[in-house]
Amino acid sequence: MLRRPLVALLALTSTLLAFPALTAEQTKATPTAKEILAKSTPAEWRKPDPQNLIYMQLPQGRVVIELAPDFTPLHAANIRTLVREHYFDGLAIIRVQDNFVTQWGDPNDDDNGDKSKIRSLGKASKTLPPEYTRPIDPKLAWTALPDGDVYAPEVGFSEGFPAARDPASGQEWLTHCYGAVGVARDVDPQTGSGSSLYAVIGQAPRRLDRNLAIAGRVLEGMPLLSGLPRGAEPMGFYTKPAQRITIGSVRLAADIPAKDRPSIEVLRTDSPTFATLIDAKRNGRNAFYALPAGKVDLCSIDVPVREPTPAIKTTH
Amino acid sequence: MLRRPLVALLALTSTLLAFPALTAEQTKATPTAKEILAKSTPAEWRKPDPQNLIYMQLPQGRVVIELAPDFTPLHAANIRTLVREHYFDGLAIIRVQDNFVTQWGDPNDDDNGDKSKIRSLGKASKTLPPEYTRPIDPKLAWTALPDGDVYAPEVGFSEGFPAARDPASGQEWLTHCYGAVGVARDVDPQTGSGSSLYAVIGQAPRRLDRNLAIAGRVLEGMPLLSGLPRGAEPMGFYTKPAQRITIGSVRLAADIPAKDRPSIEVLRTDSPTFATLIDAKRNGRNAFYALPAGKVDLCSIDVPVREPTPAIKTTH
Repeated sequence: MLRRPLVALLALTSTLLAFPALTAEQTKATPTAKEILAKSTPAEWRKPDPQNLIYMQLPQGRVVIELAPDFTPLHAANIRTLVREHYFDGLAIIRVQDNFVTQWGDPNDDDNGDKSKIRSLGKASKTLPPEYTRPIDPKLAWTALPDGDVYAPEVGFSEGFPAARDPASGQEWLTHCYGAVGVARDVDPQTGSGSSLYAVIGQAPRRLDRNLAIAGRVLEGMPLLSGLPRGAEPMGFYTKPAQRITIGSVRLAADIPAKDRPSIEVLRTDSPTFATLIDAKRNGRNAFYALPAGKVDLCSIDVPVREPTPAIKTTH
Repeated sequence: MLRRPLVALLALTSTLLAFPALTAEQTKATPTAKEILAKSTPAEWRKPDPQNLIYMQLPQGRVVIELAPDFTPLHAANIRTLVREHYFDGLAIIRVQDNFVTQWGDPNDDDNGDKSKIRSLGKASKTLPPEYTRPIDPKLAWTALPDGDVYAPEVGFSEGFPAARDPASGQEWLTHCYGAVGVARDVDPQTGSGSSLYAVIGQAPRRLDRNLAIAGRVLEGMPLLSGLPRGAEPMGFYTKPAQRITIGSVRLAADIPAKDRPSIEVLRTDSPTFATLIDAKRNGRNAFYALPAGKVDLCSIDVPVREPTPAIKTTH
């Protein structure tokens, strides 16, 4: 028996097997994501600004994060300052809470840490205004998702990021979908700085929306953050310091010679190909998935990322 | 700076710090989940039927699964038969696909396997009818979640499981939320047997609803399935057989002497305490989460599980 069937929708073979209760229309397989992407044009892909691209080197590989200065400009600037100071080098992933987040930062900057060894933030700010929402700006691209949402009046994509809007308040904000990179903080909303960040690794914790700042999104390397042993302590903290994963280095793409940068490209979320992908996920069917969902949830939509030329191999 | 703030909503300290823009009402913290559960009554907890409880022993610990015979009776019976034959003992976790599923079964029962070594299913059926949906039955407990849903006309909990309904068709079905255990199959809907199962480890892949049978739900041990290295091959298959995680044993609680069984209890999803928990998640606020979400998504609700007496330690 074939045991490879549970593929993501439309990524399957389009081989059709006849079985009862399917009409001719139903057996016409929707193109796969790969097939749809193969027809994309170069103009539909964007190269993220090197000022917004961060490479975090972990023992098992590289995580690439795109900052979102349209939504959290002060945090983006502060994180750039921290990265340029090599603040994160040698710090660690300090907790992995199942179905929630993986968080990294200074292990000593914690209840159980050695306060005398807390690393200085250098020229970076220790605290920042929250930046949880921003006024809706017609100049920012907005691609509405008409499928509805449990949490927000309107959802869609803004400049590549899953986002939500409330026309009544005139505000928009990034959403805590899988791969969102948020800013850890103390109880006071003013206490985030970007020196400790978390990535969403489970079911979208949308209740965090508008209660925490989202600094960006993981473009590559999510499995390096999600596929880690969960910490046994409350909130997923590791019991022993040796269980933490040490961060080799964190660098800004802009500080790496252009020839050494991976040529990462992200599909534009206002492109026709992205719309086709969403519709294939919403209404697509094939021999394996005979019944289309009819709708698609904001956080179940992946924004495709590619590297047209081979990535550099960073050693650590 | 305290670095333990990013706790799940309401699991936080209720210590209140005063800061601007909060009214007296806003600073009244909602009770935490722990506080709410502490007030539950014994009658609000149920002991799953030992005929429906499965223990899967992995190298790192034990996974407990509750079967859902109300929704997938033929699959439950077949899985019981397989378990009683010790079919799963020595088989393996064969793939971990990021933000999707962890799947286990016979590594040889796959495209790249050695067909001559496929393990016999013994007296179990090799194929079963799909059991993707079932007629709505007023005799089954149904606790509606009024918050809305992107995918289904109605959602809620049925006998402990997150589920969806369509009054128009008169059908109901279990939903692919985090921890759902589904039945892998070939392209033909009739080809599932329960000999290969998957658990959802990421954003709920609700497009799988009504396209695959859900055999049950993981009650304990999700981190043992979600915190695994992702396979590097397409669909998360492991590149080398040595990377697979071997299953020590799979047993039915009913086949274990009662005194040796963990005394697992699950909060009734039709209990007042469960309703209070949901509302705390929906409308709760505290010093950290100043803005309530106002709504809650079906798949973001955890059904509490407890072990009033210590678990047995199974060696393998």
